[in-house]
Amino acid sequence: MELLKQRILKDGQIKDNNVLKVDSFLNHQMDVSLFTELGNEFKRRYENCGVNKILTIEASGIGIACLTAQAFGCPVIFAKKTQTKNIAGEVYTTQVESFTHGKIYDIIVSTRFLGEKDRVLIIDDFLANGAALRGLIQLVKDAKAELVGAGIVIEKAFQPGGDIIRSSGVRVESLARIKAMSVEGGVAFV
Amino acid sequence: MELLKQRILKDGQIKDNNVLKVDSFLNHQMDVSLFTELGNEFKRRYENCGVNKILTIEASGIGIACLTAQAFGCPVIFAKKTQTKNIAGEVYTTQVESFTHGKIYDIIVSTRFLGEKDRVLIIDDFLANGAALRGLIQLVKDAKAELVGAGIVIEKAFQPGGDIIRSSGVRVESLARIKAMSVEGGVAFV
Repeated sequence: MELLKQRILKDGQIKDNNVLKVDSFLNHQMDVSLFTELGNEFKRRYENCGVNKILTIEASGIGIACLTAQAFGCPVIFAKKTQTKNIAGEVYTTQVESFTHGKIYDIIVSTRFLGEKDRVLIIDDFLANGAALRGLIQLVKDAKAELVGAGIVIEKAFQPGGDIIRSSGVRVESLARIKAMSVEGGVAFV
Repeated sequence: MELLKQRILKDGQIKDNNVLKVDSFLNHQMDVSLFTELGNEFKRRYENCGVNKILTIEASGIGIACLTAQAFGCPVIFAKKTQTKNIAGEVYTTQVESFTHGKIYDIIVSTRFLGEKDRVLIIDDFLANGAALRGLIQLVKDAKAELVGAGIVIEKAFQPGGDIIRSSGVRVESLARIKAMSVEGGVAFV
């Protein structure tokens, strides 16, 4: 998606050759007019797939998921990263290893909001090693819901997550795929 | 806001006389078409106040903040609850005591995204004891930004947070104010 690629080139900052900081528009400050365009693009790519539920994970996926849900006219569910007092009753749960934060955590979704009648589009801001996305896919399977596919804003295509998940048969649409990046050379897209 | 009150009466569940579960439409599954209406209502109440930034806190405030920002045509910043590797450099920070989770945590916002040119509307899903809202107000003060006010979806008006914050001179607009609630008697609005 050209609009997004240009924004990454303009405002993205590369740290330590591996971290792409896009916190000025994507995951700390959020450019909601851009998100509206991202949501419309996900809608265009998954048009006529019968999507009736968007699944994401807290926290930085929520904004994009909401604007995507607005395009589809369906609700969002976000997987929570730890069990809180306010989620009572039955949940689907699986473990996710975060490479960014160097720890393993549980993600949960209430069984009341995901089931076999749902056709689910997973939305997230980043795909790198794919740990979070694999966890979300597992929750969809556990719920016996239909997985339509995944919509990712930025994929680090030089890391293995996207290829592994596509080879398992899941449709993954990434709006910007980064082939390589470095502090000296900048960002190169696929 | 009548639409919201009716939805709380229809889908809210009271647990232990003090916990109002609205996770079917507000803070786990999210009804984005309702959020669009909530955002439009906040826009109506804070029209002509020059709002150029929405501030919220992860995670459940983010969706409502994004739809409110869409109505205002401005960006969102969400305060993060712990320092992560991906936030480099200078931050505003303060401590918040969570009564729901029984712990104290730090919230942070990058100094790059909040400053003296900003006219800030704080958005959050719940106001009860007011700890999170007081923390967000402190971040706005630390940034020397102008606080326009706060927009809350559900205020538990029988808890002290709203009154304390209003008496400090901050404008607080809550779309549904609960006077009392109990498992037997249900929800009564102010």
